[in-house]
Amino acid sequence: MMKEITKNILTKVIRKRPADSFKGTYGKIVLIGGNRNFGGAIIMASLAAVCSGAGLVTTITDPTNQTSLHDWLPEAMFVDYNDFETASPIIKGADVIVIGPGLGTDNIALSLLTKTFEVAHTNQTLIIDGSALTLLAHNHLSLPKSSLNILTPHQMEWQRVSGIEIADQNPTANQRIADQLKAIIVVKSHRTEVYANGKVYQNTGGTPAQATGGMGDTLAGLIGGFTAQFENKTAATLAAVYTHSAIADKLAKKQYVVLPHQISEALPKFMFKNQESKNDN
Amino acid sequence: MMKEITKNILTKVIRKRPADSFKGTYGKIVLIGGNRNFGGAIIMASLAAVCSGAGLVTTITDPTNQTSLHDWLPEAMFVDYNDFETASPIIKGADVIVIGPGLGTDNIALSLLTKTFEVAHTNQTLIIDGSALTLLAHNHLSLPKSSLNILTPHQMEWQRVSGIEIADQNPTANQRIADQLKAIIVVKSHRTEVYANGKVYQNTGGTPAQATGGMGDTLAGLIGGFTAQFENKTAATLAAVYTHSAIADKLAKKQYVVLPHQISEALPKFMFKNQESKNDN
Amino acid sequence: MMKEITKNILTKVIRKRPADSFKGTYGKIVLIGGNRNFGGAIIMASLAAVCSGAGLVTTITDPTNQTSLHDWLPEAMFVDYNDFETASPIIKGADVIVIGPGLGTDNIALSLLTKTFEVAHTNQTLIIDGSALTLLAHNHLSLPKSSLNILTPHQMEWQRVSGIEIADQNPTANQRIADQLKAIIVVKSHRTEVYANGKVYQNTGGTPAQATGGMGDTLAGLIGGFTAQFENKTAATLAAVYTHSAIADKLAKKQYVVLPHQISEALPKFMFKNQESKNDN
Amino acid sequence: MMKEITKNILTKVIRKRPADSFKGTYGKIVLIGGNRNFGGAIIMASLAAVCSGAGLVTTITDPTNQTSLHDWLPEAMFVDYNDFETASPIIKGADVIVIGPGLGTDNIALSLLTKTFEVAHTNQTLIIDGSALTLLAHNHLSLPKSSLNILTPHQMEWQRVSGIEIADQNPTANQRIADQLKAIIVVKSHRTEVYANGKVYQNTGGTPAQATGGMGDTLAGLIGGFTAQFENKTAATLAAVYTHSAIADKLAKKQYVVLPHQISEALPKFMFKNQESKNDN
Repeated sequence: MMKEITKNILTKVIRKRPADSFKGTYGKIVLIGGNRNFGGAIIMASLAAVCSGAGLVTTITDPTNQTSLHDWLPEAMFVDYNDFETASPIIKGADVIVIGPGLGTDNIALSLLTKTFEVAHTNQTLIIDGSALTLLAHNHLSLPKSSLNILTPHQMEWQRVSGIEIADQNPTANQRIADQLKAIIVVKSHRTEVYANGKVYQNTGGTPAQATGGMGDTLAGLIGGFTAQFENKTAATLAAVYTHSAIADKLAKKQYVVLPHQISEALPKFMFKNQESKNDN
Repeated sequence: MMKEITKNILTKVIRKRPADSFKGTYGKIVLIGGNRNFGGAIIMASLAAVCSGAGLVTTITDPTNQTSLHDWLPEAMFVDYNDFETASPIIKGADVIVIGPGLGTDNIALSLLTKTFEVAHTNQTLIIDGSALTLLAHNHLSLPKSSLNILTPHQMEWQRVSGIEIADQNPTANQRIADQLKAIIVVKSHRTEVYANGKVYQNTGGTPAQATGGMGDTLAGLIGGFTAQFENKTAATLAAVYTHSAIADKLAKKQYVVLPHQISEALPKFMFKNQESKNDN
Repeated sequence: MMKEITKNILTKVIRKRPADSFKGTYGKIVLIGGNRNFGGAIIMASLAAVCSGAGLVTTITDPTNQTSLHDWLPEAMFVDYNDFETASPIIKGADVIVIGPGLGTDNIALSLLTKTFEVAHTNQTLIIDGSALTLLAHNHLSLPKSSLNILTPHQMEWQRVSGIEIADQNPTANQRIADQLKAIIVVKSHRTEVYANGKVYQNTGGTPAQATGGMGDTLAGLIGGFTAQFENKTAATLAAVYTHSAIADKLAKKQYVVLPHQISEALPKFMFKNQESKNDN
Repeated sequence: MMKEITKNILTKVIRKRPADSFKGTYGKIVLIGGNRNFGGAIIMASLAAVCSGAGLVTTITDPTNQTSLHDWLPEAMFVDYNDFETASPIIKGADVIVIGPGLGTDNIALSLLTKTFEVAHTNQTLIIDGSALTLLAHNHLSLPKSSLNILTPHQMEWQRVSGIEIADQNPTANQRIADQLKAIIVVKSHRTEVYANGKVYQNTGGTPAQATGGMGDTLAGLIGGFTAQFENKTAATLAAVYTHSAIADKLAKKQYVVLPHQISEALPKFMFKNQESKNDN
């Protein structure tokens, strides 16, 4: 039976920050993606990571995206995604890796994905999104064994990865593949479903005003930001899914369409209001 | 006799989004333009397309405009307009094509226009604006036969395309050429006129505060966004024309001049307020 | 005797826009400046020109400034300042030319200045600012004979141009040189003075919160925007000087420092409030 | 005994600007840093300098950061950090030099640091931050003798510079090294400490919402802006430290995380409210 993802998850996950913490406390996150054509995708993912409070954010992308990245996010560090020698130790040192937004499916993309899979290790959370899911499916790659893996497909990407046709996607079928993959699976749709630890969760929010390019990239970055900061990775994923749609729902009370960057920019205030209560502390 | 374009058109066109829709529901739109000198034009057109709610937006432009495009719009995808091999399948796969804002009139521009005319097909809406109209006239090109074509000239561009001197432009003369062209014609002026299906419509809004570079580019992108989302293309065009001036009129109640990007940024809230009423649904 | 520049000038100059006007009605303005080191200067000047309502704005600058220009101003057109073949007809076709903000004093700068002086003609207003004033003085150039010339020096630049030491600058001495130059002179200081048609005007506004880099560039662009739109060039200059300081004075009621771009962004509302009254029309 | 840094410091330091001042009155500041990977750091430092009211700001950085710099700050001038011939006279002519944010530790960085140390002279304030502190420690450089030097390490950087392990860092131990270095030391932590003139000051503000990349860069730029404008450099440093955390504390009343650029953007209004009172003047 599916459990609903509701507002309750927020105060459980978004902890009150301890007074004597520093930026290292809130995780190192690396985002890999954005080729020459799809640079905006990795920028939107990075924006969500920074605005959700991740401590240190590095974006590994095509060099033509350097300036746009810093125009949106001076807080993010930049690495040329052709320079794996520089990128490799940063990926190894990360708490969370997000790979896929705007990555594309060419040889550089495939090489980045396989190398990232090679270096991924225990204590890391690896979020696989967008083109990386297509590469995963088309090249029959195996997920890294030691990292905690989170896949964030929309229904067509899930068909590619799982082999289940969209029409046949249902909790039982999805659950079986999720178990085989030993991963958390976030199947994005009108009512996003999360498969984790043998359970199925369904989001209760979301609006058609969100139906625009970049929403998925933003969610991937947001899951990255939450898992970088919060201990329980399943709960962090559920909270990120809920937060993403809750902010959109609120904006959609006044807007016909919600732009992805608006969700990210609303994060600091949304998270403040929905953090662990002082009384519970 | 001319029919007035009034606020009524909005709730007929701007449908309430169905709950289970996704970004594909709201159309794929491609915008082609922006040479090295006029990059801002295609950015302003693209901004209108994204802010009006088009599902997936790709901008095909000079590579020197890549960063500015993503600084304004991480939501838009970028294609180098010198790389027609990459651009061609994207143009073929689009629901709506906008060509012309800032395109210029050099050989690359002409080549892009003729190739676009070649690939345009049934079920596509093709909006021809700015420099593309000048190229069309000067090179005696024929409009594509199978796409729905919308031309958005100002009066001088209409003179070039129609052969009717500005002083002689009147509904009867314009109508005759519109019929020959089998296209929807939007003649932009103080009171913009739309020729469609043998009828003439005149806009009732508009302000001299709009008399600034980039307004036409914004309108072209907005017609693109509306025709990408809404079924009836004539009505969508009329609604875009009305929306463009209605937002400007509102801003002009407090501003001496209205900048084009302000109109785009006001779209999500304006469209929310003026969508199909819940009672009618 | 010096006449005070007061708020009265605004409603005399800022005319109510006629309903059937179009962008050509509000002038073509060209801004020339911004080398690789001082690109921000020409951007700030261009921003003032666009925000004040100039109809068509082209910025001729170092190519490394193209992206920043469009990030601030998609409304402005860009021309590479090394490409005088492209720039020349645009300069000739302009109603107003602003030359100098961030131009620098190297050979390209000098060449641009002398070529601009060569093409300047009757019916054009030529505003000479910043480095262009230094070049003018150091190279003993003569001002163009047929254009209306407006010089906007700060006190040190005025010393270079006029030969009058700062300590000796007074209305009588300044007036004499202004007469020789047959130009409008705007000597910028705590209380800016304008010399025009044998008269001296002193501004009554201005705040030390304005004492920051870029203020002069903004004023030059604003004089450009006003002279492009309004008939009486002396009155337009006085109104621009007043507007620049009046907006700063208002912002300084809440800010320790006023940034130049804030003044430009406040123009549309300020001009709306202070335009020709409806009763007078 | 440690003295507390409280709100009192603000009205003592932030003087009311004299009416007849100009931009030169508020100092020339040069910021050196931002390699290809860490460009955002020097942009954030520069933003703090400009927003705090420094008169003239020049940023010396990797050329790939030119556009992002001007997108954030048209008010700042740009110099390529590979071109020391251009940079050198600007550094010599500065009132304040900030070196280190995003500088990195490669050969160019080391060369910039040693050359800056060579040209630093009396009447200059030299703020050494970030990577410059690591370079200082690892290369056993001596601080310049004649400039007023301010070091802004976090605890790990202070360990590198002072040789005191983080666990052993205490006022007595820190004080001893500060005396040897003859510098003002700002040790950044949950409660930042300032060592100056044989005294120790502890900040009373600060929030874990600040624990994000770029906060330190912003503080370095802010100390630069304050020391450029205000006479007493120790008091200016204390006021900058207090201002940085006080703005963050205020924003953190509504935000889960505070982004560095938000602090800079809040400076003009914060400084207005907390300047020297009119009654005291």
